[in-house]
Amino acid sequence: MPAPVAVVGAGLVGAGWAIVFARAGHPVRIYDAAADVRAKVLGGIAGNVADLKHFDLIDDADAVMSCITVTDDLGAAVDGVAYVQESVFETVAAKTPVYAALDTLAPAHAPIGSSSSGIPASAFTEACKTRGRMLIAHPVNPPYLVPLVELVPAPWTDKSAIDVTHDLMVAVGQEPIRVNKEIEGFVLNRLQGALLNEAWALARDGVASTADIDKTVSAGLGLRWSFMGPFETIDLNAPKGVADYAARLGPLYHSVAVSRANPKAWDEKLIADVENQRREALGADKLDARRSWRDRRLMALAVHKAKAAQKIR
Amino acid sequence: MPAPVAVVGAGLVGAGWAIVFARAGHPVRIYDAAADVRAKVLGGIAGNVADLKHFDLIDDADAVMSCITVTDDLGAAVDGVAYVQESVFETVAAKTPVYAALDTLAPAHAPIGSSSSGIPASAFTEACKTRGRMLIAHPVNPPYLVPLVELVPAPWTDKSAIDVTHDLMVAVGQEPIRVNKEIEGFVLNRLQGALLNEAWALARDGVASTADIDKTVSAGLGLRWSFMGPFETIDLNAPKGVADYAARLGPLYHSVAVSRANPKAWDEKLIADVENQRREALGADKLDARRSWRDRRLMALAVHKAKAAQKIR
Repeated sequence: MPAPVAVVGAGLVGAGWAIVFARAGHPVRIYDAAADVRAKVLGGIAGNVADLKHFDLIDDADAVMSCITVTDDLGAAVDGVAYVQESVFETVAAKTPVYAALDTLAPAHAPIGSSSSGIPASAFTEACKTRGRMLIAHPVNPPYLVPLVELVPAPWTDKSAIDVTHDLMVAVGQEPIRVNKEIEGFVLNRLQGALLNEAWALARDGVASTADIDKTVSAGLGLRWSFMGPFETIDLNAPKGVADYAARLGPLYHSVAVSRANPKAWDEKLIADVENQRREALGADKLDARRSWRDRRLMALAVHKAKAAQKIR
Repeated sequence: MPAPVAVVGAGLVGAGWAIVFARAGHPVRIYDAAADVRAKVLGGIAGNVADLKHFDLIDDADAVMSCITVTDDLGAAVDGVAYVQESVFETVAAKTPVYAALDTLAPAHAPIGSSSSGIPASAFTEACKTRGRMLIAHPVNPPYLVPLVELVPAPWTDKSAIDVTHDLMVAVGQEPIRVNKEIEGFVLNRLQGALLNEAWALARDGVASTADIDKTVSAGLGLRWSFMGPFETIDLNAPKGVADYAARLGPLYHSVAVSRANPKAWDEKLIADVENQRREALGADKLDARRSWRDRRLMALAVHKAKAAQKIR
């Protein structure tokens, strides 16, 4: 029987994590300080689990739901757990007291991973006696559909805490990566930011519309990237592999980088222009429906990827 | 009956274009100056068409093949065609005499699109009398699996040539974008280069392994990007849309850009390190098999995307 896991903070991200662990059979104890959040978390999860069942991404919705309990007692939530995933509000002020409490309440050897997307673990775990087991475990939303998890140590995080968390993430079907040091934006948002900065600059300079820049990814670059990363992509795109590719195209890409060596912030006029283009493409009243579409597309893609990984070798 | 189209230059890219047009029912006349290229092009195409049939991406392989003929006579190839796609070797020296010949041989109103991935049309069409109908139509390889096409005018390209090419590309199932001016790398390679430059910098700085950087895309960023672009992605990732997102995350991404404002070229040591990591992941003798895997995954993804676009709205 998989070991119990605690989910601390039951907003959208915490609820998503509960599904990840429960789907793999772990008893999940959800804690949140706010009564209204606790009151609605199971209903939200049940809706998501029903969607997963509809797409055949889980076998038994009731079995998943039966793994999950909610409590208003942090000590009870973490009692005897093998791992704690923290997803409280993303400010140092919100996280620091939670880690002070977990420092004494959580079993000494259970790693504590934070869902923080930007604040490094060193900013809120320094004063903890057991800070060696505290780290960032940054998911993509929703984590039960996008499996990547960034594991980022603080300078004092024990390698064993990273290793245990890594193995747990693999066991529950996630795809963990090891970020070797604290760096702004970690890896995922740095890669996304690099592409976004170029996209915004192209829009600012009138090189292409936001719709055409989007299409360049959704009908071009994004196809290969949905099943292999940028290094493997270029490794296969030159006859002799990645060094061959670098020799051919490295100078072009360096020139592109040099052309953006004086980066401008996304200014008000540019933001207004991009916002206008997006609102023409999709009215503000349709954002929620489109998010639901996106999640259903992600589910269908997850089904496709699982089948393709089996059939195409 | 769709109008005839000429494909000039019958390497991998030209052969891929022949499939795109023939799949849509256009008679395709392939020209290449080299006898050995002409001799093997139909065999290569037949293999690709059989793969498409195997994945149910076409109905009738024989019907596709019957659209395609090969000639050693450029004048005969372009006689009466509605469009010319040029894919000869990518140097100004190779392209200039081809355009000089097409200038007089191709029907006056047929646009001539070049597959050039880097050289702008102004570099090899300036001296042509009919240069107003000459443009870049840059595909992704293979174009029958990755539909994006970048349409890039020279300063003297007529808007009508862009419009006609745009409509033809849509009609044959491609996804054209309008790049409004000549810019190094056009849009696709600038976006790819921005992400690659960050990926190489992260590898250089020891932040993560190339395998983990790849996973960040293939199990993270690339999933949404396979069906929606970066602007739509962030538009849905903040409650009120893209301006809301820019207010929250713009400063982080600007800071990431500033941290790379002194770009370094991919140097020999770094290239050797990345090459070593890739060769450990995939031996040089396995590159071809992996390329075949990639193309089969692209075919399966094309099937998936077509179904998902139908079923999920």
